[in-house]
Amino acid sequence: MNRITLSPRLRTSPFYASTVAAGLSDVTIYNKMVMPTSYGALKAEYERLLNGVAIWDVSAERQVEISGPDADACVQYLTARDLRKAKVGQGKYVAMCDHAGRILNDPVLMKLSGGRWWFSLADNDMLLWCKAVAAERGFDVEVCEPDVSPLAVQGPKAEDLIAELFGEEVRSLKYFWFTETNLDGIPVVLCRSGWSKQGGFELFLQDGSRGGELWDKVWAAGESYGIGPGAPNHVERVESGLVSWGGDNTPDSNPLELGMARYISVDTDVDYIGKAALQKVMAAGGPERLLVGLLVDSPATSSWPLPARTPVTLDGVEVGTMSAIVYSHRMQRTIAMAQVGRSVVEAGSTVQVEGPEGPMDATITELPFL
Amino acid sequence: MNRITLSPRLRTSPFYASTVAAGLSDVTIYNKMVMPTSYGALKAEYERLLNGVAIWDVSAERQVEISGPDADACVQYLTARDLRKAKVGQGKYVAMCDHAGRILNDPVLMKLSGGRWWFSLADNDMLLWCKAVAAERGFDVEVCEPDVSPLAVQGPKAEDLIAELFGEEVRSLKYFWFTETNLDGIPVVLCRSGWSKQGGFELFLQDGSRGGELWDKVWAAGESYGIGPGAPNHVERVESGLVSWGGDNTPDSNPLELGMARYISVDTDVDYIGKAALQKVMAAGGPERLLVGLLVDSPATSSWPLPARTPVTLDGVEVGTMSAIVYSHRMQRTIAMAQVGRSVVEAGSTVQVEGPEGPMDATITELPFL
Repeated sequence: MNRITLSPRLRTSPFYASTVAAGLSDVTIYNKMVMPTSYGALKAEYERLLNGVAIWDVSAERQVEISGPDADACVQYLTARDLRKAKVGQGKYVAMCDHAGRILNDPVLMKLSGGRWWFSLADNDMLLWCKAVAAERGFDVEVCEPDVSPLAVQGPKAEDLIAELFGEEVRSLKYFWFTETNLDGIPVVLCRSGWSKQGGFELFLQDGSRGGELWDKVWAAGESYGIGPGAPNHVERVESGLVSWGGDNTPDSNPLELGMARYISVDTDVDYIGKAALQKVMAAGGPERLLVGLLVDSPATSSWPLPARTPVTLDGVEVGTMSAIVYSHRMQRTIAMAQVGRSVVEAGSTVQVEGPEGPMDATITELPFL
Repeated sequence: MNRITLSPRLRTSPFYASTVAAGLSDVTIYNKMVMPTSYGALKAEYERLLNGVAIWDVSAERQVEISGPDADACVQYLTARDLRKAKVGQGKYVAMCDHAGRILNDPVLMKLSGGRWWFSLADNDMLLWCKAVAAERGFDVEVCEPDVSPLAVQGPKAEDLIAELFGEEVRSLKYFWFTETNLDGIPVVLCRSGWSKQGGFELFLQDGSRGGELWDKVWAAGESYGIGPGAPNHVERVESGLVSWGGDNTPDSNPLELGMARYISVDTDVDYIGKAALQKVMAAGGPERLLVGLLVDSPATSSWPLPARTPVTLDGVEVGTMSAIVYSHRMQRTIAMAQVGRSVVEAGSTVQVEGPEGPMDATITELPFL
């Protein structure tokens, strides 16, 4: 494994010094920002997420803010979901598509007020996309990346910890809902969210100069809950079927093949980029490929991501690609995520994936596993 | 220093296996692709670039291809330079700006034919920008990222090596000019270019399945010239004043402050994104900041990039930021690149930068150093 060379072209987060002090060992680059992937103890990090509480620097989940007189119209045009019922304080999982219906990002869209929204983004420079669309279409909006850096607190003990820090009323916050608040004067947007299925919150720090302070306060209060450092957990996210945009899809994927159908408004009279293309996909009977789970006949597998997609074959013919394969501690077996042709999925075929010692049989199953 | 976690979200290049076999030790992520930064011997890599010939995997320098009936008009609209005299086979260093005149990228623009162009890009997802502008403005073009991966051969012995591989006629190729050719059937665009001032070529591989083959052929022919692996060299590029887009500029920079004035067409009747904003900058007397060199009073400094920008001060007041500081082997002194307020530059003030043992005096000078 290679070392990462830091430079001013890549950004470090407001929590970076804290993560280094906590023993950061492995990172990825996400939205041109250093994002922790491990502190050198993958199994302990998994256990902490499943049974305790973990603190994650997910600053790399950047926001694009759209504000101004035409903000509501502009955001709708950028989003493949009917937003007419979106409420202030509510986040929604959405797809942003290009004009051919290909998915460009799968953010959580947060309505801060009428006229002010955040796209809380996966790894893609949607600031460029949003700026170009807004300017060329003549929307009267401001498009920027605000000074906002999420810190995730995840795991079954997260709610008790967050309630201790922010008050008992956070317990009534519904999934993806948020509130603007502060912690001893440090401004944050507190949202019940996070890239795991173990529950928790994200604290969207609104002052990058106070990252160390926020980290220390959460950590200090978390000690009695056994808090420790972590990162978006590759094994847990595969078990939970959480999509890694850019990893689990290919550049030509549409959101329907990623299992996002219930978040996509195809039959709507609101207009958005890609609508005609998505209507065509549905008129043709649905997407040609599906993101599926695989139950793999394998002794054991790494807890690390695959370095690259590998082929999925049926009788020696490529029918898809695998984007993740891990050993599930909870299922005590090897599981994978793959993009596979729909006809193969519907036929219920047993497929093969590449293993360290040759091809391995894999049974197709629905996501999530757990 | 931390390890990089590879995953399918990050791409490896067609030359990746070759770089690993050659002893790759350090990498960065550039356009979501793994790009080598060192093979563990920075000084030897510098010497090889200055005195011999080096092979660099610069696949991360991705292309956006624009083709179709409106390609010429679309490319002009995206480019802050009058392209009416651009010739087929000629590359041009250009700026792409947003509607407020801020620089989004500083690619080499290559005219493959009337109606077909490549932007050969720095680290920014201009595919999103170009697709959005083309679709929203209604240009009849196709915008894509083609299967094209540059391999650089740099250094004073590069020309002899490339002439041995491709024929003597390559010696007459002018700077930034290119030709479509092949090496034993491997399709490449051969261009006299590269991110150093030591001379050389870039081989734009047009078939990603043949990266190992191309690397091996160049390496085999290069052995008699003492070829060895390298990467865009941080010390040499600072000596040469080559701009690292995204590193040496800030998100609000315009191209005029980066010393690109001679590549920008401000007084032109062609229309492009950002023209009005750049005209306003010139009407106001020029940019408010300048990218300059600093001669730093320092014993010695690393050959590695700074992890982040640091302040440049004058009498304790911040007047800019420093983006690179290295020990120049050729100048035998410490040099730096910084963005500094123009009034400070014009006053010829001595400024201060942060050093490992406190503030260091620095004399402002023009780029390049060498």
